[in-house]
Amino acid sequence: MSKIPKVSPLTIDKLNANVVNAKYAVRGRLAIRAEQLKATLAEGSSTLPFSKVINANIGNPQQLDQKPITFYRQVLSIVEYPQLLEKPEASIIYKADAIARAKKIISNVGSVGAYSNAQGIQIIRDSVASFIEKRDGFPADPHSIFLTSGASSAVTMLLNAQATGNKAGFLIPIPQYPLYSATLTLMGASAVQYHLDEAKSWATNVDEISQIVNKAKLEGIDLKTIVVINPGNPTGTVLPEENIRGIIDIAAQHEIVIIADEVYQENVYLGEFISFKKVLRKMQQEFPGKYDTVELASLHSTSKGMIGECGHRGGYMELVGFNKEVVDTIYKLAAIQLCANVPGQVAVELMVNPPVKGDASYEEFTREYSHIFNTLKHRSSVLYKAFESMEGVSCQAPEGAMYLFPQITLPKKAIEEAQRLNEVPDEFYCLQLLEETGICVIPGSGFGQKDGTWHFRTTFLAPVDDYAAALTKFHQRFMDKYRD
Amino acid sequence: MSKIPKVSPLTIDKLNANVVNAKYAVRGRLAIRAEQLKATLAEGSSTLPFSKVINANIGNPQQLDQKPITFYRQVLSIVEYPQLLEKPEASIIYKADAIARAKKIISNVGSVGAYSNAQGIQIIRDSVASFIEKRDGFPADPHSIFLTSGASSAVTMLLNAQATGNKAGFLIPIPQYPLYSATLTLMGASAVQYHLDEAKSWATNVDEISQIVNKAKLEGIDLKTIVVINPGNPTGTVLPEENIRGIIDIAAQHEIVIIADEVYQENVYLGEFISFKKVLRKMQQEFPGKYDTVELASLHSTSKGMIGECGHRGGYMELVGFNKEVVDTIYKLAAIQLCANVPGQVAVELMVNPPVKGDASYEEFTREYSHIFNTLKHRSSVLYKAFESMEGVSCQAPEGAMYLFPQITLPKKAIEEAQRLNEVPDEFYCLQLLEETGICVIPGSGFGQKDGTWHFRTTFLAPVDDYAAALTKFHQRFMDKYRD
Repeated sequence: MSKIPKVSPLTIDKLNANVVNAKYAVRGRLAIRAEQLKATLAEGSSTLPFSKVINANIGNPQQLDQKPITFYRQVLSIVEYPQLLEKPEASIIYKADAIARAKKIISNVGSVGAYSNAQGIQIIRDSVASFIEKRDGFPADPHSIFLTSGASSAVTMLLNAQATGNKAGFLIPIPQYPLYSATLTLMGASAVQYHLDEAKSWATNVDEISQIVNKAKLEGIDLKTIVVINPGNPTGTVLPEENIRGIIDIAAQHEIVIIADEVYQENVYLGEFISFKKVLRKMQQEFPGKYDTVELASLHSTSKGMIGECGHRGGYMELVGFNKEVVDTIYKLAAIQLCANVPGQVAVELMVNPPVKGDASYEEFTREYSHIFNTLKHRSSVLYKAFESMEGVSCQAPEGAMYLFPQITLPKKAIEEAQRLNEVPDEFYCLQLLEETGICVIPGSGFGQKDGTWHFRTTFLAPVDDYAAALTKFHQRFMDKYRD
Repeated sequence: MSKIPKVSPLTIDKLNANVVNAKYAVRGRLAIRAEQLKATLAEGSSTLPFSKVINANIGNPQQLDQKPITFYRQVLSIVEYPQLLEKPEASIIYKADAIARAKKIISNVGSVGAYSNAQGIQIIRDSVASFIEKRDGFPADPHSIFLTSGASSAVTMLLNAQATGNKAGFLIPIPQYPLYSATLTLMGASAVQYHLDEAKSWATNVDEISQIVNKAKLEGIDLKTIVVINPGNPTGTVLPEENIRGIIDIAAQHEIVIIADEVYQENVYLGEFISFKKVLRKMQQEFPGKYDTVELASLHSTSKGMIGECGHRGGYMELVGFNKEVVDTIYKLAAIQLCANVPGQVAVELMVNPPVKGDASYEEFTREYSHIFNTLKHRSSVLYKAFESMEGVSCQAPEGAMYLFPQITLPKKAIEEAQRLNEVPDEFYCLQLLEETGICVIPGSGFGQKDGTWHFRTTFLAPVDDYAAALTKFHQRFMDKYRD
């Protein structure tokens, strides 16, 4: 093996401090430790008290037991190898509608091995526009749609475009998905935090946001954007229309852009998803002129929903109400990275344009889709009940997304022990959970939480009965050990 | 259609100036105009003087007439839909070695729909390490290898990690691939230009680089990295070992990182590709101690070579000699974007691990590979001869990559006419070429060139006979029109 010299000239103190300071808990310390434990288990001779690691730290359904939806994968399989259509056996392996869809894509896209237009393939943007129109009952413009590498690259482009320095403020929810805080740190911009209200199912508090906006302005912060995650990550909350109206109102009043992270729009188990775009268009109709210049970027992804195709890194963003020169600038950012991967773009096409009644795959698709939906709903409910039964744990009922974010009232002794070890208390809890059970969750401190409260985020993707039992048992042991 | 309001609050003057100022000619003005012309042609009723647009502006082989290599696509097709292996017809459609390889990948990777490790899938990094070992005759460490979204995302991470402000200097060649200058502008860092020597087949001039390094230091620039593109883009030059040694010497002496952009390592038609890693290891053997702490990042991609799978956005980087904490920081940057798309990672596996003698696909693979290689070599040669025959055009003989970068001595009248129209003269030339023939190339000013010289970059990917004839005719017309 190569010998890595002990000290090369480039040391961490010489690196970009923004990069060094950025934090990303979803794949941070807990996740890295989980990888080490997996490697130990793979060696075969471990004395660990568990036989497998359960990655409940990341919304990655197909890493656990979720099967891909057959129709999606049949089409992707054909577009990767179009020559198979020349073989008569193809029609035995692939359903007729998968073949027809693949042919349509191939005839429009050509090879998936070619770079596409930097903004994404035209016919797929057309499909996205139709999907949005059908969802909202308001038109969408394919020219305002960008196909992106998951939602992450959309976030990077949007924040980068407005990151004018440390006086540039971006309102982000607390708790939040740490992509936002990490990206703002990378870009040397300021995160301006607004708290979601745990007592009200983690709803947004429009009055508090207004106060924060005014305070930030007084402090010389140039507010650029408000980020809203709906359904919430990590909270799982589905925002009511009233909340969305309140945020649009603030955006209009203070001339700030809205980033609506709506990647969990299909993961709704209680209540109803309403898009920011739809509410904005309604408000524009109700109050002519008042909301015409509101700027909204809405994000979606193939990683979530029932498609769950994380590894394909597909996504889109719709830019509503932006000036053309701003859209052109974002186009340039996309072009510098050439294009989003093309199979991922095809996955977007499939997500927004699934089989319909009468198609050969329709029944199978519906069965698979419902199975995934029902499984997620069931697991969220079992896990929620488990949390409700645990000592010192409270949890909002699961409404959407793939997560629960229970609050744990940690015993004083546990907090003291954590402090003695120079650990954040919720990380101390999560590390013990990992070491004792192989379950990897993320401490609330990775997302942000009110001072003095402790949480963790778990997905409800893992097979739930054993998982809930192991969590419950661990929690009881932990509480017994540190009981005041 | 949605009405976009005329002026929304976010105007271009409020955006991040670094983003506004970044330039990326490969998909810039010429490419955008080419897209418009394509749309006009697609409408069917055009009166344009050509029937199709030829994108010679971007190394995108499968957008033109290059067919994907069958073995690669068979494996990708199976990993997208593993259930097909349960059908007996699979063995009629797919070759035995493609099935075996797909099974191996599936059994190690699981679903390609799951996020992978942020650094990339372990067994694929193992394959990359074996490939490098075989190529160089020196060991490679899978822990130092990152699978990336093309080479572009590797460049972004590497530059971002060291971009400490406008005093942070990065040596880039002139002419260069504009990803480098664009990314440095985005990050507010300084490009320090060194010229490749056109009279010496665009070789690096080590003495000149030394002078530039010393001058930059005197000016208070903190030099971080030297970027070398070998084989060259846009120049096509394959660097001799002597040049590589000179650059490693400078890097060792001044303690600067080397980024070796080696994405065209298989595209060599004259001479031999020698990797920076191999030369570094040789120098470390020859001069014990002297080069032990040289830091080298070597980049590769599935977009180039004979694989040409641009749309799959696969790539890797090997980090040699970096301190662990720096590698960990780069890991964090990768983790913030979750992972490179997994089918693209599989494409890397296939690129570094092609069929070998005795495999069912070996003959077909060899035939397809050679066909692509010979076609590229033939086209480069025909196009080169065409340039050699043109009035006022000189061009280096094609050695590597996918490009020729001829110098054009523009007539004084043409330059004056361009200036009158407020156009850069080489852009003026390229725009006329596009409008009259549908051929899209990129002006030399997009890559950088010595003051007072004019070039353009063309790929040699298009079917060449018509292409060379159309170029030649246009050039003659242009020269006749503006002759002094």
